[in-house]
Parts: sequence; C-alpha cells; structure tokens
Amino acid sequence: MILTPASPEPVVTSTSPVRSTNPVPTPQSAAPDVLRCAYMELVVTDLERSRKFYVDVLGLVVTAEDENAVYLRSFEEFIHHNLVLRKGPVAGVAAFSYRVRSPEDLDKAVAFYTELGCRVERNPHGYNKGIGDSVRVEDPIGFPYEFFHDVEHVERLAWHYHLYTPGALVRLDHFNQVTPDVPRAVAYMEDLGFRVTEDIQDEAGTTYAAWMRRKSTVHDTAMTGGDGPRMHHVAFATHEKHNIIAICDKLGSLRMSDHIERGPGRHGVSNAFYLYLRDPDGHRIEIYTQDYYTGDPDNPVVTWDVHDNQRRDWWGTPVVPSWYTDASIVLDLDGNPKPVVARTDDSELAVTIGADGFSYTRKEDTDEMPDWKKGEFKLGAQL
Amino acid sequence: MILTPASPEPVVTSTSPVRSTNPVPTPQSAAPDVLRCAYMELVVTDLERSRKFYVDVLGLVVTAEDENAVYLRSFEEFIHHNLVLRKGPVAGVAAFSYRVRSPEDLDKAVAFYTELGCRVERNPHGYNKGIGDSVRVEDPIGFPYEFFHDVEHVERLAWHYHLYTPGALVRLDHFNQVTPDVPRAVAYMEDLGFRVTEDIQDEAGTTYAAWMRRKSTVHDTAMTGGDGPRMHHVAFATHEKHNIIAICDKLGSLRMSDHIERGPGRHGVSNAFYLYLRDPDGHRIEIYTQDYYTGDPDNPVVTWDVHDNQRRDWWGTPVVPSWYTDASIVLDLDGNPKPVVARTDDSELAVTIGADGFSYTRKEDTDEMPDWKKGEFKLGAQL
Amino acid sequence: MILTPASPEPVVTSTSPVRSTNPVPTPQSAAPDVLRCAYMELVVTDLERSRKFYVDVLGLVVTAEDENAVYLRSFEEFIHHNLVLRKGPVAGVAAFSYRVRSPEDLDKAVAFYTELGCRVERNPHGYNKGIGDSVRVEDPIGFPYEFFHDVEHVERLAWHYHLYTPGALVRLDHFNQVTPDVPRAVAYMEDLGFRVTEDIQDEAGTTYAAWMRRKSTVHDTAMTGGDGPRMHHVAFATHEKHNIIAICDKLGSLRMSDHIERGPGRHGVSNAFYLYLRDPDGHRIEIYTQDYYTGDPDNPVVTWDVHDNQRRDWWGTPVVPSWYTDASIVLDLDGNPKPVVARTDDSELAVTIGADGFSYTRKEDTDEMPDWKKGEFKLGAQL
Amino acid sequence: MILTPASPEPVVTSTSPVRSTNPVPTPQSAAPDVLRCAYMELVVTDLERSRKFYVDVLGLVVTAEDENAVYLRSFEEFIHHNLVLRKGPVAGVAAFSYRVRSPEDLDKAVAFYTELGCRVERNPHGYNKGIGDSVRVEDPIGFPYEFFHDVEHVERLAWHYHLYTPGALVRLDHFNQVTPDVPRAVAYMEDLGFRVTEDIQDEAGTTYAAWMRRKSTVHDTAMTGGDGPRMHHVAFATHEKHNIIAICDKLGSLRMSDHIERGPGRHGVSNAFYLYLRDPDGHRIEIYTQDYYTGDPDNPVVTWDVHDNQRRDWWGTPVVPSWYTDASIVLDLDGNPKPVVARTDDSELAVTIGADGFSYTRKEDTDEMPDWKKGEFKLGAQL
Repeated sequence: MILTPASPEPVVTSTSPVRSTNPVPTPQSAAPDVLRCAYMELVVTDLERSRKFYVDVLGLVVTAEDENAVYLRSFEEFIHHNLVLRKGPVAGVAAFSYRVRSPEDLDKAVAFYTELGCRVERNPHGYNKGIGDSVRVEDPIGFPYEFFHDVEHVERLAWHYHLYTPGALVRLDHFNQVTPDVPRAVAYMEDLGFRVTEDIQDEAGTTYAAWMRRKSTVHDTAMTGGDGPRMHHVAFATHEKHNIIAICDKLGSLRMSDHIERGPGRHGVSNAFYLYLRDPDGHRIEIYTQDYYTGDPDNPVVTWDVHDNQRRDWWGTPVVPSWYTDASIVLDLDGNPKPVVARTDDSELAVTIGADGFSYTRKEDTDEMPDWKKGEFKLGAQL
Repeated sequence: MILTPASPEPVVTSTSPVRSTNPVPTPQSAAPDVLRCAYMELVVTDLERSRKFYVDVLGLVVTAEDENAVYLRSFEEFIHHNLVLRKGPVAGVAAFSYRVRSPEDLDKAVAFYTELGCRVERNPHGYNKGIGDSVRVEDPIGFPYEFFHDVEHVERLAWHYHLYTPGALVRLDHFNQVTPDVPRAVAYMEDLGFRVTEDIQDEAGTTYAAWMRRKSTVHDTAMTGGDGPRMHHVAFATHEKHNIIAICDKLGSLRMSDHIERGPGRHGVSNAFYLYLRDPDGHRIEIYTQDYYTGDPDNPVVTWDVHDNQRRDWWGTPVVPSWYTDASIVLDLDGNPKPVVARTDDSELAVTIGADGFSYTRKEDTDEMPDWKKGEFKLGAQL
Repeated sequence: MILTPASPEPVVTSTSPVRSTNPVPTPQSAAPDVLRCAYMELVVTDLERSRKFYVDVLGLVVTAEDENAVYLRSFEEFIHHNLVLRKGPVAGVAAFSYRVRSPEDLDKAVAFYTELGCRVERNPHGYNKGIGDSVRVEDPIGFPYEFFHDVEHVERLAWHYHLYTPGALVRLDHFNQVTPDVPRAVAYMEDLGFRVTEDIQDEAGTTYAAWMRRKSTVHDTAMTGGDGPRMHHVAFATHEKHNIIAICDKLGSLRMSDHIERGPGRHGVSNAFYLYLRDPDGHRIEIYTQDYYTGDPDNPVVTWDVHDNQRRDWWGTPVVPSWYTDASIVLDLDGNPKPVVARTDDSELAVTIGADGFSYTRKEDTDEMPDWKKGEFKLGAQL
Repeated sequence: MILTPASPEPVVTSTSPVRSTNPVPTPQSAAPDVLRCAYMELVVTDLERSRKFYVDVLGLVVTAEDENAVYLRSFEEFIHHNLVLRKGPVAGVAAFSYRVRSPEDLDKAVAFYTELGCRVERNPHGYNKGIGDSVRVEDPIGFPYEFFHDVEHVERLAWHYHLYTPGALVRLDHFNQVTPDVPRAVAYMEDLGFRVTEDIQDEAGTTYAAWMRRKSTVHDTAMTGGDGPRMHHVAFATHEKHNIIAICDKLGSLRMSDHIERGPGRHGVSNAFYLYLRDPDGHRIEIYTQDYYTGDPDNPVVTWDVHDNQRRDWWGTPVVPSWYTDASIVLDLDGNPKPVVARTDDSELAVTIGADGFSYTRKEDTDEMPDWKKGEFKLGAQL
C-alpha cells in the first residue's frame, strides 16, 4: 500500500511499487536479454478483410504475403515485420514476440522457461517468414511468448515520405495483456528483466494494472487486471497527435467509425496521446504517441490511485465499459484457445463506475470548482 | 422534406433547405448589413473566478477591466473585445452582439426591428466600454441582440507570439442559440440577411438545428432546437488542432478536467475540430478550428439526417446528454431572465438515444462492417 | 510617406496607405462585385509532366481532363476548378480568373473595362470547361483578367479524408502579380473594389508591394514591384503547418527538392506560414496557411518598412534572389506573351541586399542583442 | 570506402562504416556503462542575459540557481538538470556530462581513461549542485568529459501542462563535437561503448561526420569534422514540429530573430526536424524532434555521400557557412581554453560550396527534372 488517503497527485517512487503475495518462483537461470517487443502474430478469420483494415485503412506496409498470412511493418522498422495476420478458424493471438540481444539469449530463454516448468518449443527456422531461430513458450501466466534474434533486415522507410499517409504508423510501441493476478504477473516479468514504470492501485493495495519496459519507453507490455490470459491490445506509434486524428477522420469518411472504441485522448498513465480501434475480428489496436524516456535504472515509478478519474484519461473522459471487458483470446502452442481464468481481485470497472464505485478529479474541493454540481455533465456521471 | 430514406450521405442543395410553416412576417424595412458576430456579453456571478477561467486558463487577452466587468479579446482581433464578463446576480447572456458595416445600418436595425414589433433601444454611447452607438433589441424569438459599428480599435496581437499560450484563442468564431422552433428562427434570420450553410433534419421534415452565416465561415450563429430562448455556446477559434488538445491537457494539469463537457472531436456538420467547455457559471464555450469557406452566394447547403451518428461527431462518439439539455438563460433589456418556452417538435436527444431512437453509421450494411455486433462497444450503445 | 525613421514596428493605419501620382482614371461605371480569386489558367509546355507535379506530387484533385487541359480543384472547393493546366508552346498565364456575385456583374465588368479603354471579350459559353458566361480583359496594367459567375458545381471533398494526403491543399488562397508601378496598380484595383490590407514601403514613400483583398483574408491578389506584367505566384492553402512540411518531406523523398525555392517560413506580411515551389515550367506556387480575418471595412492596414528584415520572413531568413527576379510571363487574349515593362522605382532586392542596401532586425540596438556581431551568421549577411 | 560513384541513395550497412588509420589504442580496462548524455556545463559571460535567453525565451525550467550558476532542466527530466549556465570570463564548455548505469561505473571510467593516459579527476561531492560522485577527464581527443551516477531526483514535469509554452523543450537529446580527425574520434568512442548510427563520407573514404549513440536514439553525441576540440551544439527535443516553429515565431516577436542561424528544416541524417539557434555568447543550440529507434545491436548504419545535397537538409536548403565554421571553445579541467587543432582532411564546407565543390539532388538526371536550369534558384547556387 503506497497511496495515502489524502494523496492529491500520483505517488512517485524509485523502486517497484508492486508486491506479490503469490509470486512465480524466481528461476536460477539467467533471463534472456530482451531488447523490445518486436511483433505480434494475430489470427484473423478473414484474411482479405483484415488486410484491407491494416493496409488500406491503417497504412501498414506489406513486407510479404501469401494466401495464409500477411507480414506488415511500420515506416521506421528495419526488421521483417511488426505484425503477422494469419488466417485461422478462431480469432486470437498466436504469439507476443520479443527480440533478444544475441543468439545466445535463446538458450537462456529455453533454460529460464524450462526451469519455470513451462511448455517450451524451439524452431531454428523460425515460426514466421523473415524470422530465424525462435523459442516459443506458454509462459507462467498462460501467454504464448516468442523470443528471437535472427531476422531478415528490410528497408527502413523512414525517409520515404511519398508513401506516408496522414496517419502513418512509424513504430510498434507495446503490447497489453489481461491477467487475473497483476502482482504475480509483474513478479514474473521482473524476473524476465522488465521494470515497472507506472501502475494503478487503490488504498487497500490492490493493483489494477502495471506498465513494464525493456526499451526506454513507458512500456513494452502492460499487465491489465481482468479475466485472462487474454490480449488487451497491441499499439503502434505515430509521430504526432494530428496523425492520430487523421486516422479517426479517415475512418469517418469510410463510414467505419464503429471501429473507434475509445479516444482519442490523453492518457494519465504514460502521458501519451492515444486512440483505441477494433479490427474486423474485434482485436483491439492502440495508436499512441509521445510518452517519455525511461531508460535510467532509477527511473521514477508513478503510482496512480484507481479512483483518480484522470488516470486513464487525463481529461476525465470516462472509459467505455467494453474497453474493460473485451479482449482477445490467446492460443497455446498448438493453436488452441487458452482457457480464461476469472479475476478475483476487485475490478477497475466495478470500483470506478456505478453505485459501488466513485472517482474524483481533485482529492479535496477548492474554490476552483464550478458551482453547478461538479462534473455532473460528465458522461460517466450520466451513465 | 429533402432527405430520401436511402440517403447514404448528407444531401447537398443550393437553396435553403429549411421551410417554416409559421414564419415571422418579413419586414418591409431593409435589414442592416451585418458583418459578423463580434462579441457576447456574459453575466457571471463571481467576476474574479470567471476572470481566472477566461484569462489565466484560456488565455484571452484583457483589453480593459474594472470592478464590474472584464473586456476580453482574442489574439487576432482589432476591435475592443470579443467577450464581456459582467458581474451580476444571475448567470445569463445580456447580449449577442454583431458588428454592422456602417453607422447607417443602425438606423436600418431600428426600423427593421420596430416593424417586427420588437422592443428596441439605442444608446449613442454604447452599452459597453469601447463600443459606440449601439442598438439593442429583444428579437422576435426572444434573444437580446445588439448591433454596432463604431468601436475602439486596439492592437491586433497576431504577431505577438511571445504572448501566445499553447492553446491560444485567435478569433471569435460564432454563437449558438437554443430555440423551440428552428424553421421559424431560420426564416427570421434569413430576413436579417443570414444564409443557411448546413442543417439537421429527419425524413419527416423536422429540422433539429441550422447553421447560418454572414461572414465567410460555416456560421456566425446557429439555431439549435430545444427549450428557449437560451444560449447554447459561444465559440472561439484556434489555429490548429493541437492548440485545442493543449487546452485539455492544461485543464488536466490544473485538475479542472470537469470543465470539459464534450470532445475534443471532429464535427460532421461544419467539418471543424471542436471542444466544449463549461465555465464556472456553467456557460458553455466551444473551441473550434478549421471549417471551410462559404462566401459564395450559391454555397452548397449540406443537410444531415438526424439519425446519421456521424452528424454531430464524425467519429461516431456519442453526444453527452447534458450537451442537449443544458444551456444558459438570456436576459431581456432590463437584465431580467427571459422565460423559456418548451420545444414541441421532436427532440434530437430523444430520437437518437435510447429505446425510442436509433442512429446509423451506414445506411446499409456492407462487407466492411465488423463481425462483432456493429458498434456495440460504442458508449452510446452502452448507455 | 507614412513610416517615420525611428519606427520600430510596422505602422498600422485605417485607410489605404498607398497613393499614386499617376493613377489610372477611375471609371464612372460601377465595378463588378468580385467574390474572390477563383482559378488560374496556366499554360504549360508538357501537360503530362505538369499533371504529375500537380496531381501525383501536390495531390490536387482532377475534376476533368482531356488531351489539351487538366482541370484541378482543392479539397474544400465546390466550383469546377481552381487551376487549369493548358498545353501550349510557351509557358505563361492565360487568365487570372475571379468569380463575381451575379450574372449581372459581367455586364458591369464589360462597361467598367470598356470605359477604361481595355480590350474586352465575352464568351457566353465560357473559356474553360465547367465555366459559363465569362468576360476576359487585358486590364490597364497588362494582365489577362477573367470574370465569371456561372459555374458547374462539383462535390466538395472536405469530408473525404480517405483521399487526403499529408500535404492536402484545401483552398485556392490568392494570386500575386508583378507590376512596375505598384501605386498605380493599387489605385486601379481599389476602383475595382479591392482593399489594401498590408504593404511594404520605405521612408521616401516608395511602395514595393501591396496586398489586396475581396474575400475576408489578407489577399485575393498582391502587387509586387518589378518588371511586369508578370505572374509572381498562385497560392493554395493547407489546414495546418505540418501539411506544408509534409510537402517538403515528400519532395525530398522523390528527390525533387530542387522544386523548393524558398521556405518554409513565417511571413511577416500576412502572418501566414508559407512555402514557395517552382513547377516543371518554373511557374511559382505558394503553399500557405493561417492568415487572419480582414472582412471589416475598417480593417487595420499594416505598412512594413522595406528595411525591416522580418517583413518577408518573420524569422529573418533572407529571401533568395530568384524569388525577386523570376516570374512567369502573362499572355494577351490571343495567347501571345505580353511585353514586359521594366520597373523604374527602387528594387526591393537592390535596396535590401548587398552594398547598396541594408536591413535591420531592431531599429535600435538593445541589451537583448548578442555580443557576437549581430546577425553576422545570417545567410543574407554572408552573401 | 563504402560509397559507389553511382549510388543514388544513402548506403545502408550493418557494421560500423568508419575505419581509422590512426586510432587511439583500445584500453584493456572495461568501459563504463554509459546510459545517456545527461547535461552540459556552459560557461557564459553574462549570467543574467543567458538566463533570460534560456528561461524567459526558451522556457527551460530552473531547478536551482545562485549568483554564479543557473541549473536548468527540460519538462520530462527527473534528474537535477540538463544544462548548467556558469558565469565565467570566457565563453566555453566546461563539461559534456554523461550518466552511467551504476556507481561502480565511475571506477571503470577512472581506469579506462587512466589507461588512455588522460588527465583524470574525481570529486565524490560532484562538480555541480544536485550531482554526486563524479569523474572528469580530458579525453584523448581533447574534450572535458564527465561521468556520474548519483543525482538528485526532481519532479518530472511532463504532466504539468499549465507550465508548458508553445515551444516547450522536453528532453536533452544530444551533444555535437567538432574534432579534426573523425575516424580517430569514432574509434575511441566505440571503445567507450558508443555505436555509429549514421555518417557522411565521400567516395575517397574521407569521413566528414559521424553520429553515435548509447540510448536508443540516433545519437548521444556526434563528431563533426573541423578544427577542434570545439563544441558544435547541444540539442533539446520538443514533442512536435509546431513546437519548433513556435520558437521561431516567438524569437520574431521579440525581435530576436538574429538568434536563428539555420532552419527550421528536415535533416537527411537522422530524419529529425531541426532548428539551430545561437545563444547570447554564440553557443549553438539545436531544437530537434522525431528521429527513430536505434536500440537493436544490428541497427542499420546509414552512410550519406557528402555531395548529396539532401544529407544535411532533406529539402536541399543550403547550410549557412557559419554553421560549418563557428563553434564554442572547450575548457580543460582547470577552466582554461583548450588549444584548437586544425582539420587536415577535406572540409565539408569547401567540397560542397563554391568553385571547388559540387553537390547533387539526384545522381543522374531524369525526366522529373525541371526545364529551367536545375536548382539554379537554390540559394546555394546563388551564393
């Protein structure tokens, strides 16, 4: 419990604020040196329809494709792909794939996960086009994680402005995973070498979500409390905020505005500007820009109060309920859906919306507040 | 009735699409030549608190002030003010003030409104500091309208970038009025020389709102159907979209996010980027940027279907109910609140939200639509 | 002479600051009511090459085309075109075309220019596709001016964001003409109903350039002192500054950066953000965004000192010499080049660059100035 | 020599393209683990005047100050400062300061530089307020380098939008150093653990400049060929391009445009948007935004041809000569100016401007080129 009841601002600490009472035991084996989240393999039910969404609408670049898969990258990427769309009978996530520093780190990954008692597979030819020797595991909290180093280099299109659209996606930024026990997930990820940058807690010490990074941004992945394992979203970065607005405008002109689930807005957590879309299978995509440098080992960790209504949206715009409840299933290494375990800790949705929950803009009222009942016109208050 | 049932897009016509069955009779007297909406006089209950909101937070420039009033202008303005905050016992609007082309237009205003049977007053010294000879009327639909030509010129601060904030307001853009009978209001305003640029109707021919202009933008004022006369909002323009986002970010950092009522978003009507705030008295302020040139006499008029869920927000973001229901009272020429008359035509809120209403993104479903039940995660659908 | 020697800032007046000692006599005939600059007809020597530049690179929209001409419009336009590329043996300008308020204004145009002794022609079917009854004249200062009212309406693509490029051009903003005697040109244009919004003078009263408007922006056309009649540039507007930067970035990636002549930068005059390009025939195109409202009859006129080095570029970036010296020839009504008359007044280039000229950032030095010799690293100072 | 004569595009390699024939011998001692460039200590001759420039004009945040020094940070920084302005008799650079991963890395720094035969000092209390145990060296190529780990944490103001100016500086991005022998400097920096991301060469193999990074951006420092050791510039990042334009606009309105030396523009190298300013002592400051992720060990290295006129500015805008010739002196550990050694390799200025040099936009002419003599209006061509 690190928040004090009167805390008017997020609490900043220099060590991890999340403690698990039920941790995954730390392996003796050294963790692989993870560079960054590198790509996600999404299973989609109608490849042509998904290709249209990601290529014709969002403007990702096709590195390669065949009848079963499309390999896509962002404009500033030099590895083969950041997203694989693979045709399959049930929409889900086949792999959260991370790049490691060296080929030797794959041996470390095998040892690390084997010691954890996980199912581990290795394919020296890779599981996807353009990727070499790879290790895939079903990790301790149920997610299909992949690690690789060898990869085909492709042209970095950063300078190819004649190919840019107004909403050009330039980098894969992060993953976001739904898991029932966030502190347990964090403990395991810290063993894997990730560090917490921000989190959401309440005064009783319940952790609702945590953001963790390897590269020097706010996160390579986040753990969001909920029934899991499920995939909450995968996020691509744009250069500027107007690029994100341009994506919304285009979806409007294509009469595809139903694909916009939440935003655009400014996050409290991460300070980034964001937008959440849903793809034709319902997979959630975030478009994201402008978080901050986190690469120092003592980077301050920011803990937000779950009742602070600016934590998820800095402008106090309420989170749409589906954003809390919907997520994509993940697949085991045989391609079968992983069973979903219910969260038993408090639900962020439940504690912040409706009769049992509450939220605040300021811990204590001040003269700055309007006369008319504070925030009464907020959509959240009108739900 | 100009919309056809299968209309997939807004309908474009070259003549006014709004017809009143109950028009205000057209005067014989020539209308004054109105240049543009010029300023609003707002009555506020706590002058210091309102000054803080408009000056310290929004960054409007103080031209003059005394213990009873603050005179504010935007960065590109050269007339004395665009907004007057006047201390008073009841929050309301004392005047919607328009500038006319010449002093002689004031005589025309007197004749025009006298023939209409309106209460008309004239003050050769003006009703506000910096303004000369002025005519004030209680117009046929109950609003306190002012007309003036003589005005004190002040420095246009367009080039004074050292004074700009990230959310700098550069122009007064428009007013928006709530009135029960929109076609009747439109007929009167057309007699006054305004032209409709866009409107919202349903297939039965009910008009829900209409936008009208004198200057070459989408509007100098709009008529929004509802209980009136009331003031819906007054709008200031920024140069770019990021300026509007900066205002939201600042309200967040001041823990004043409750002042954000709706947006930011992209309007369908007007194509502008928008944000709605509420001031300390609850008066609604819009921040607005980038509509289009409308100055040709045959400028195409765009009629939107009230059931098109992109009409009010191009991205399909639902309108918060308070935006439909709340508005500021207006004052008569003695400073007393004008009684409010209920709208008897259908309510846009009622026909578009909840069990009795419906809305659509596309008139007919297509292959482009997602599999998961269309738009089910939209907050509107989750209300 | 309106500038005083010690003037540290542009001088603001409320009446026209330009006086001609040699004016074109004012006609008795009423001037046509000009709405706005509407389109330019450019003669290009290689139609396919020019089409590639304007359509594939700049993204203008093709309304119609045949083997001899391409008709282009911007995204927010509803009249048939804003630019005609017409194939011809010699690159030049066939028409500066203005839209007038009513068909009757064409009769006025005929009378006005006939009284001025100009060559006048009228074509009830129009000189270009999509345009009806039109009057063409060789005006008193040698330019081929066109006036029309009837025009084919086409779809306003403002909402068609799926068609936008990062550098989308949304409006035709203005023309710019080179003429030897600026005050004489201004006097004639004022008779035609135009008003000066800004100008450049020196202390001796020489006028170097003047900006004049009909619509409510800084200009519909400008008169630039130099050997003329010639066409200096035609300008299109974007919504935001990043759109202009995107055009530069795209020209870079196409290895067409040679087409960038000057900018991007911020104008002193007009306060707009700008970029100057040269098309394949050398015709100069400006991309322009964010000047200010000028629609009031007493709009303050801003007079800049020719020696103020922020007048042409607010950041003090020197003007490239070709920008002063190069311009396109204009054609008479038979399509033959108009002879060019040399300017006899002082040249802005000559008085501001090199041994005979000088310029200043501040009229008087202050403590704010750097120690190292002021501005010595400015490219202008290094020329 | 990696460029081939016909190379139309920068050459991309996956290993360092720079080879020294005269390298500093590689120490046996392990290099310290450098996290990032952290701050620069600038000696200024008039502290109040410099404070005005960096605080009142550029908006850096004052963490602390006394009569001899001002400690400044950017909005997203959490360490005590990114810039120290220290009052002194001669303007120069007292330290290029890097943060290392752990306290133990200071011991490594001592051993590493001692083995290199450099002058090494250590101060357990730090050389500047807010900084603990620090090592300072005069490095093998003559620069005063500092390394530290212990630092006072201060509030990260990322969320404090009410303090942002339109041109808010959010991070220290990089240093840039002038040194006669670039390959020798690169070899030493590679021993220190830096990696080349981009460089400029000619066909004969002369290296004109190289960019090197520790953090995952294009650089923490760059080596620019010229008479050295001198400091070329220190760079701060903004979020978006309009922030950089806002700085120019503000300098214009303060009549301080002389402080703008070069830009704004788009770099070829780094792909970032840039602006170069000169402070009151002539120290050069870059404002910079939007380069790309470089954190993978096999990040592709981009080698530009010195004759490619888009290498320094993607739009082909010529580099102002002073940008090549001017730089700040650096100080030894006693605070005395380090003697400057002349470059003997070819000068980038000499080989690209004037009679002896040349540059190209395209290696080979194509039909895309304009008819008028290519690029003749470019200011470089008009010099």
